[in-house]
Formats: sequence, C-alpha cells, structure tokens
Amino acid sequence: MTDDVFEIHKKHTGILGIEGDFPVENKEELGLAYTPGVAQVAKAIQKDPKLKDVYTMSGKLVAVVTDGTAVLGLGNIGPGAGLPIVEGKALLYKDLAQVDAVPLALEPEDATTMAHHLQAIAPSFAGFHLEDIAAPKCFELEEELRKLVDIPVYHDDQEGTAIVILAGLINAARVVQKPLSELKVVLNGVGASGVATARLLDAVGLKRLTLVDVDGVVHPDSQNYNHYQTDLAQNFQGVAGETLDDVIADQDVFIGLSVANVLSPQQVQRMAAQPIIFALANPVPEIDPEEARAAGATVVATGSSKYPNQVNNILAFPGLYRGLLQSGIKSVTPAMEATVAKALAGMIATPTAQTIVPGVFDAGVVQTVSQAVMELENNTEK
Amino acid sequence: MTDDVFEIHKKHTGILGIEGDFPVENKEELGLAYTPGVAQVAKAIQKDPKLKDVYTMSGKLVAVVTDGTAVLGLGNIGPGAGLPIVEGKALLYKDLAQVDAVPLALEPEDATTMAHHLQAIAPSFAGFHLEDIAAPKCFELEEELRKLVDIPVYHDDQEGTAIVILAGLINAARVVQKPLSELKVVLNGVGASGVATARLLDAVGLKRLTLVDVDGVVHPDSQNYNHYQTDLAQNFQGVAGETLDDVIADQDVFIGLSVANVLSPQQVQRMAAQPIIFALANPVPEIDPEEARAAGATVVATGSSKYPNQVNNILAFPGLYRGLLQSGIKSVTPAMEATVAKALAGMIATPTAQTIVPGVFDAGVVQTVSQAVMELENNTEK
Repeated sequence: MTDDVFEIHKKHTGILGIEGDFPVENKEELGLAYTPGVAQVAKAIQKDPKLKDVYTMSGKLVAVVTDGTAVLGLGNIGPGAGLPIVEGKALLYKDLAQVDAVPLALEPEDATTMAHHLQAIAPSFAGFHLEDIAAPKCFELEEELRKLVDIPVYHDDQEGTAIVILAGLINAARVVQKPLSELKVVLNGVGASGVATARLLDAVGLKRLTLVDVDGVVHPDSQNYNHYQTDLAQNFQGVAGETLDDVIADQDVFIGLSVANVLSPQQVQRMAAQPIIFALANPVPEIDPEEARAAGATVVATGSSKYPNQVNNILAFPGLYRGLLQSGIKSVTPAMEATVAKALAGMIATPTAQTIVPGVFDAGVVQTVSQAVMELENNTEK
Repeated sequence: MTDDVFEIHKKHTGILGIEGDFPVENKEELGLAYTPGVAQVAKAIQKDPKLKDVYTMSGKLVAVVTDGTAVLGLGNIGPGAGLPIVEGKALLYKDLAQVDAVPLALEPEDATTMAHHLQAIAPSFAGFHLEDIAAPKCFELEEELRKLVDIPVYHDDQEGTAIVILAGLINAARVVQKPLSELKVVLNGVGASGVATARLLDAVGLKRLTLVDVDGVVHPDSQNYNHYQTDLAQNFQGVAGETLDDVIADQDVFIGLSVANVLSPQQVQRMAAQPIIFALANPVPEIDPEEARAAGATVVATGSSKYPNQVNNILAFPGLYRGLLQSGIKSVTPAMEATVAKALAGMIATPTAQTIVPGVFDAGVVQTVSQAVMELENNTEK
C-alpha cells in the first residue's frame, strides 16, 4: 500500500496535470489560440469584464488553497506538506464532478494578509475552496475574503463538514423518531468544523446545543475561548455544567469533532433514550463504534469507511462546487448548506441505524448535491 | 476568423483544463490518491521538504502571471483582459514542450506588494513566467521576486525577447560578415524588452550601443528616464546626439522595440554598409520591411509571421522552461540566455538575409533550447 501510494503520487509528479484543449501545430492554429486572434478576446473582455469567465479558465477553475496549519490527523505541517492533500481534493473534484481545480499552497500568515494574497489572484478563478487552515484564523480569513472577492469562498472543513453532519442528523432523528429541532446536542470540539456545524444547526432551528472543548463547556463569558466560540454559545440554550461529563446526561446527541477516546460507554449510558453518536475524530474516533452500540447508542456515525454511516466531506464539496459553477451563484450561505444537507438526507428513502447517509461512491450523490444548489439559483444573490 | 477565435476560447471555457492522472472510483483508489494514503506523502514531505517537488505538481507546474499592464499592441488592459493572453502562453507550453503551466491574473499593485503575493503562493509552483507587466515595475518585481523565492523567475517580455534578438543578430552578423561584438547598434525603445536586450548584448560583449526612447537618446544623466535605463546607458559607448535621427548615421544595426513607422527609408540609407534592421513593433513595424530593403537594408527582421525572419518569443520560452524543469536549474542568467541564443542561431547552418532564425514550428526548436539549458546544469547554481 505505502509503495503504491508513493508511486502514484510520483509517476506524473503529482496526480494532476494541465490539459490543452486546442492543438497548436501551425501558424493558423497559433493565430486562433494565441496571437494575433487572442487580442480580440482580450479587447472583448476589456469592454465587458464579465466575458472573462466565458472565454478563459476563470469561468471554471477552482483554487483549492491550504496553508497546512491544521491538517486532519497531522496538525500544523505547513503549506508544502499540506499540498498533496489539496491536490487530492482537486483530483476528486475532477474525477467525481468534472470540476477543474488547481491546488495552491499558501504561506501561513495572518488572516488579513492571506486574504489580500488571495484577492490579488482572484481574477484567475471561479471560486476558492479553503482547506486545512487552523481556527480561529480560518473564520477571519473566510469572513474577510468574502468581502474582498466576488467569487464563492468555501471552507471545506467548515461548511463541508457541517453539511454532511446535518444530513446525517436529519436521518438519525428520523431513525429515533425525535423531532430534529428539539434534539438536545452536545457538540464536543469547537474548532473550524465545530463552529461551522453549530452555526448550521442554529440556522435550521436547533437551539438546545451545548458546546464543549478542551477547556470545558463554552459559556458566553468564557475567558479561554475565542469570540467566535463565545458568540456562538450565546445563541443556544445549553446545559449547565463545566465539563463534558457534567453535561452529557439526558442528551439526545453527541457530536464529536475532537480527539480519540474522549467519550466513555458510561457517558453514553447516561444520555437520553436512543442516543445518537457522531464520533468523527480521525483516524481514531471519540468512542469505538462497537462500544458505543454496546452501551446503548442507537445510531453511530464516524469519519471512517470501516464502519457504517461514514460522515465524509466528499459527499458535499464536489457536487456543491459543480452546482455553484453551473448556476453562477457567488456565495455559500447557511440556507444553501441546509438545502444541500436535506437533499443528501433525502437520498436515503428509509433511514436505518446503519444507513443515515449515502456512501461516498453511491450513484447520484454529486448530481443530487449540484441540483440542490442550482435550484437555489433564482432565490440567491449572484 | 473572428468567430472561430471566440468559439475556440469559449468551447471549453478557456483553452486549458485540469487533467486527473489517477481515476478514483472506489474506496481503494480513494485510499491511494487521497485519504488515508496521502497522509504518508504529507509526512514524507514534512520530513524532507524537497520531496514536495517529487510527489506534487509543484515539481512541474509553471505559473504564467500577468497584471495586464503592458499587453503588446493593447497597452494597459488590466489582469482580466490580460488573462486570455497568458492562457494562450500556457497552452503553447503544453502543446509545444509538454510543460504544465497555469495562467494567473494578478491585480496590479506596486512591485513589492506583487512580489509578496507571488512569494506567498510560490510553494505551489516549479517556476514563474511573468508576462505583459509594465516597465519599470517589471524590473523591480523580477529583482525582488528572485530574492524571495527559490524557483526560476523569468519575464518573457524581457529575457525571451532578448534571447531571440541575440539569436537573430548572431546570424545577421554572419550574413553581413561583420564581427558581432563590433556592431554599432541603435536600440530604439528601452522598455522591458529593450532593457533586457541591451543587458544581454552587454553581457555578450557588444559595447557600441546607443539607447533611444520617446524622449530621445538615453544618457547616463538623462532626467526623463528611469534608473534602469540611465544605469544601462553607462555601460555603453554610444553615439553623441539627442534624437534617433542624430545617431542613426553609420550604425550597423537598428533594433526597434518601439512603435510603428519611426524609422524612415532615408535614415536606413544613412546607416553603415549592409544595414541590419530589426523592426519588431507589433502589429505595425518601425519601418515596412519592403521599404527597408528598398532603402538598402541587407537583413530585415520583424515580429510578424507575414515576413521572413520572425523574431518571436515562442522560439525561446517553451524549450527554456522545459530545460529548467528537466535540469532543476533554479535561475535564469544572462549566461543562460546567451547560451540559448547561440543554440538557436546554430540551428541555421548557413544563415542568409531571408533566414537568420528558425521558424516557430520548425522541428527541433524546443529540443535545441531545452538541451542548451540542460547542458548548463553542471555549471549553474541550482
């Protein structure tokens, strides 16, 4: 396996290349693709800037950008070591959704500086996909960049994760026959993905969330947490307490976006009837799925393909960007995330404890997601 | 022709795409290209940063960057309108030299700011190809960027033009049987390409250059010219005078990198015996080639494919970057430019007035240039 991995990434110097869509072998072809013909294209764009996205790659090319400061399972490894991961994402865009995407490694700097770097090259692209950028910088970067550019800005660790979690939660609620909006949820791990997930759950009406991270429960006045986290805590009616153990009792749902083995079988036993456990830490989940089930959990999801109910962003991003590009929608909003999550959930006609989300390679995933985005076209600011 | 041009650039939204080099259709393939396998690649790069260029596109991908401030024949049209031109160059890289290149439109800012934007994304690339960036900013940008990054920085309007002019001049000198280094040259137009050409001619031993631009002859103490231009003037023993008309008498060579119709047949007649005229303004040259010949010019070159002796950068850049990538050489130096120019000139066994440079589509051009670069490998700082 290891040898195969290195061989595949080495064979073509990476796993992507540039493809020429027009052969230039003589003067006539040169005149059409480049000089003198291209001057007409340049003049047309100068006259009507929107034509840039009709006649150049900027109408289709997504930049998958990382500074490598928060790589899943590896931590802060820097932009160079983070590059093969965004290259992998770019390959998935092409293979799964026929979206052209180019990997970009960006030096880690403060959010404002990074936003300006990306703004400067934004005319080249149809959208930004941010990846593996540490919280809280990623929040500020996304916020600032969205103000600076008029193309979609999507952070997969945030919006992608939130979408797939909501999709799974919609179906998990159906399995246990509890109303989604009344679920009592403990969200353990309020980094990039946790904040985005809490925001999305808030947007669809779940108000009974308790946020927990390494320094315990996040309160609106917590000193150890950043303002993104404390601001969020204000939106929810959480449970009183200081630790995960304090607040786990009688909860319907545990969502872990944290680290291995932080949830015990005893804690699962103290939850409300028919517990729903999303143990999404990678590669080792917050609780072993077998142990969780043995302790009474009805629905268990993880990030791994080794178990049922794999919550994986691949369900979201390829179709989402395909829908953005095909519709011309310029922003990713909570309403869009909710719509996509519902569409994904809707792919499972009769959810069961073993099947709350489609498989990553199931037919129709990309199409369902892109279609859901495109149906927003008429209701969304372009 | 016009319809064809627009159709070709529109059909695929631009003339390039991203090509996936590994199909991902199931869990096993996903594990090799992306997760979990890619974590091993990331860790290997973290341990040995040089491996980035072995296992990711950064080992082969050239960024063709423009801010659109000085597009040949169109002027300052901005990064968006400049994008189809760098896209065309990227296509030529692929079609002619199998080099993977991606077009990048960069917002025009001061040189230092632009250099920092490019530095920030440099880990993604094997090299920068700058294009259509106005002088004198392009000089400062190239200078600063070369200090900031450890990949080649090449400005096609400078180095590319200089290489092909020198190649042509080597053979033109053979045609008129004058020693290259003793040629008396008037260089009219001291922008990006003029400065680079003068620098290269200086580097190969031509000292009898007179530089002229819109405000007349460039002297070391000229107030109307920037320091790049006045510094250059110090290196040469030019002719006394203030205007092109003052200095053209008895010159062996006129090199025009300026605007249409600035050289008259009468001025050609006042040059030394067997005048060499490079009238490279586009689309209309400094003097009509027929008129120049009628006035006594022995060798006439232009930038157009309509006449013999087309001086076109396509002779240089595809092979040059192919050679850089294959050799691992990290810098483009005057010695390299001279070597490439000599190799190009050497392709013409017996130069004639009608044939001083190979044709753009002649067999062996890319190979000859890349080979010349690669042969420098052992003598050059990597």
